[in-house]
Amino acid sequence: MRIPLNVARYAVSVIAAVALAFPVLAQNVLAQEVVAQNVVAQDDPLPSWNAGVNKSAIIAFVRSATDASNSNYVPPAERIATFDNDGTLWVEHPMYTQLAFALDRLKTLAPEHPEWKTAQPFKAALEGDMRTLGALGEEGLLKIVMETHAGMSTADFEKIVSGWIAEARHPRFDRPYTDLTYQPMVEVIHYLQENEFKTFIVSGGGIEFMRPWTARVYNIPPENVVGSSIKTEYKIINGKHELMRLGEISFIDDKAGKPVGINAHIGLRPIAAFGNSDGDAQMLQWTAEGPRPHLMMLVFHDDSAREYAYGPAGGLPDTAFGTFSPWLMEEAQKGGWHVISMKNDWSTIFSPP
Amino acid sequence: MRIPLNVARYAVSVIAAVALAFPVLAQNVLAQEVVAQNVVAQDDPLPSWNAGVNKSAIIAFVRSATDASNSNYVPPAERIATFDNDGTLWVEHPMYTQLAFALDRLKTLAPEHPEWKTAQPFKAALEGDMRTLGALGEEGLLKIVMETHAGMSTADFEKIVSGWIAEARHPRFDRPYTDLTYQPMVEVIHYLQENEFKTFIVSGGGIEFMRPWTARVYNIPPENVVGSSIKTEYKIINGKHELMRLGEISFIDDKAGKPVGINAHIGLRPIAAFGNSDGDAQMLQWTAEGPRPHLMMLVFHDDSAREYAYGPAGGLPDTAFGTFSPWLMEEAQKGGWHVISMKNDWSTIFSPP
Repeated sequence: MRIPLNVARYAVSVIAAVALAFPVLAQNVLAQEVVAQNVVAQDDPLPSWNAGVNKSAIIAFVRSATDASNSNYVPPAERIATFDNDGTLWVEHPMYTQLAFALDRLKTLAPEHPEWKTAQPFKAALEGDMRTLGALGEEGLLKIVMETHAGMSTADFEKIVSGWIAEARHPRFDRPYTDLTYQPMVEVIHYLQENEFKTFIVSGGGIEFMRPWTARVYNIPPENVVGSSIKTEYKIINGKHELMRLGEISFIDDKAGKPVGINAHIGLRPIAAFGNSDGDAQMLQWTAEGPRPHLMMLVFHDDSAREYAYGPAGGLPDTAFGTFSPWLMEEAQKGGWHVISMKNDWSTIFSPP
Repeated sequence: MRIPLNVARYAVSVIAAVALAFPVLAQNVLAQEVVAQNVVAQDDPLPSWNAGVNKSAIIAFVRSATDASNSNYVPPAERIATFDNDGTLWVEHPMYTQLAFALDRLKTLAPEHPEWKTAQPFKAALEGDMRTLGALGEEGLLKIVMETHAGMSTADFEKIVSGWIAEARHPRFDRPYTDLTYQPMVEVIHYLQENEFKTFIVSGGGIEFMRPWTARVYNIPPENVVGSSIKTEYKIINGKHELMRLGEISFIDDKAGKPVGINAHIGLRPIAAFGNSDGDAQMLQWTAEGPRPHLMMLVFHDDSAREYAYGPAGGLPDTAFGTFSPWLMEEAQKGGWHVISMKNDWSTIFSPP
């Protein structure tokens, strides 16, 4: 399914809902392999990274921030690291996972909504007619988000997302989405955690779409997830209090919203920030302008063989999701932000099935 | 200064700003006393609590939640404890500390605003004419909040609050406000932290008014503070990015807003919640209706000799701040929420000067 740019780009801003998913991490590793991996891990905190400038930069930054004898030392309370999610920690092509969820959810709900057979934007979405959906603009997408992400309690939404993410499979890799996290980035998260960094997800995606599975998949607990959200209302439903999800956007955690979300949720400026698209530029700027030593990194998707290749920076295709523009590449070069080549920097992309 | 109820009650909702304060905790304790206290502390995690039902309830709850061999065990990831701030962790009479800050700030700014000499609500506030201020209603108070809490960067606001809180003294106790935290409650926070609880402040007060000093005073870091807030905007000021505080409320973390704020910020339901006024009722309800074992407690201010006495529950005076209504007392009795008598349950109120 080909999704027009305007549909896709707006989707990342609009899909601002939330819920749970049980990660399905199948790990069939022989005992001998575990021992071998542990030996490597003792020497190398980032075994899925190839030797190079980027791997060295991460290790040097962590060593220096944690070494109390040098001037770049940062006390643990201020060791804040923020990670975008889509395209930085897990796959975002051929479409954002949350958009796949929304479209699947529409299909599930369609039998209860015969009017969707003729009413837009639902007709177009159900028929996979992305061109018409694109022509219907932001208003059309907002209607889809509200039908699929609002009108239920937070507890019910959590169950819906958990059920979906346990069952859904990525169309190309035929694995659960929670399997398709980037092993090298998960290693970075754990390496930072072992060095008393506080790690946060700061994503344009819906906060309650991520929270159900981030603890298991990344070891990042719900309270350390920052994302887009819709409003909720505390009210009595059948004699019990519930938080009902309203059809109204509360916050869009993207672009200039990322520093705002970081301040609102964390209250401290990051010293390390990881992203992969134009939507992350302000988070990296905000980090770079802080008074402490800092590390800014962008994942560049240049590996169509093992994952995907898109830009349009570097002459790669200008696709619907995760735009890495030539402007962002320039900002990275001017600012000394590290650009990670998936193809060259990563020896492994996903953990083995 | 006597503050009409309507002014005061609205103030708690409206004062939705944020910043820093250096705690001034003077501790002149002889070495011998330290040794004695440590011996007691080993036996007793709550030395400032008198023996009784409430002290026993806290200790029994913590022991049971952390004992993996019993059915009330709660895994550390779900050990969420939330504390209201004003009147639960520190003094809130004769007025909320943040309101004292706002009124002082108006006086500081007055020379730059000669028009305030004749324009309301500023004239009334500067003259301490609370009756007129009350008659000007919510709109008047909102203007004062916006003049004192908005229009600057978050970094500048933090400096303003830190400076004020380092200098300001409580009118009755003549000590810095950050000295006037309740020693028994600080012991509860530390006791929970030692038992792998995650402790959060969930206050109607401004998030950025609390964050500068909660780590030092309570050992609660900025990212674990939930509160009311105003909107911020990421923009370039003199060639550098700043988060500018706008004259617009973002969120009021009071009453039914507390469960909403808890869900937005933490994403998990508390198993222990501590409050002291009608504004905390929904937080305690939300905690009580959770599937895990839970503990709900309300501080009742019945000690006019050592602190203040107010209700109107129990026939105590109906004052401007921290209303504990007969309705709340009934809710507590029906729900098995513990009501802490400051007079009877606490052997110490404040840490010694």
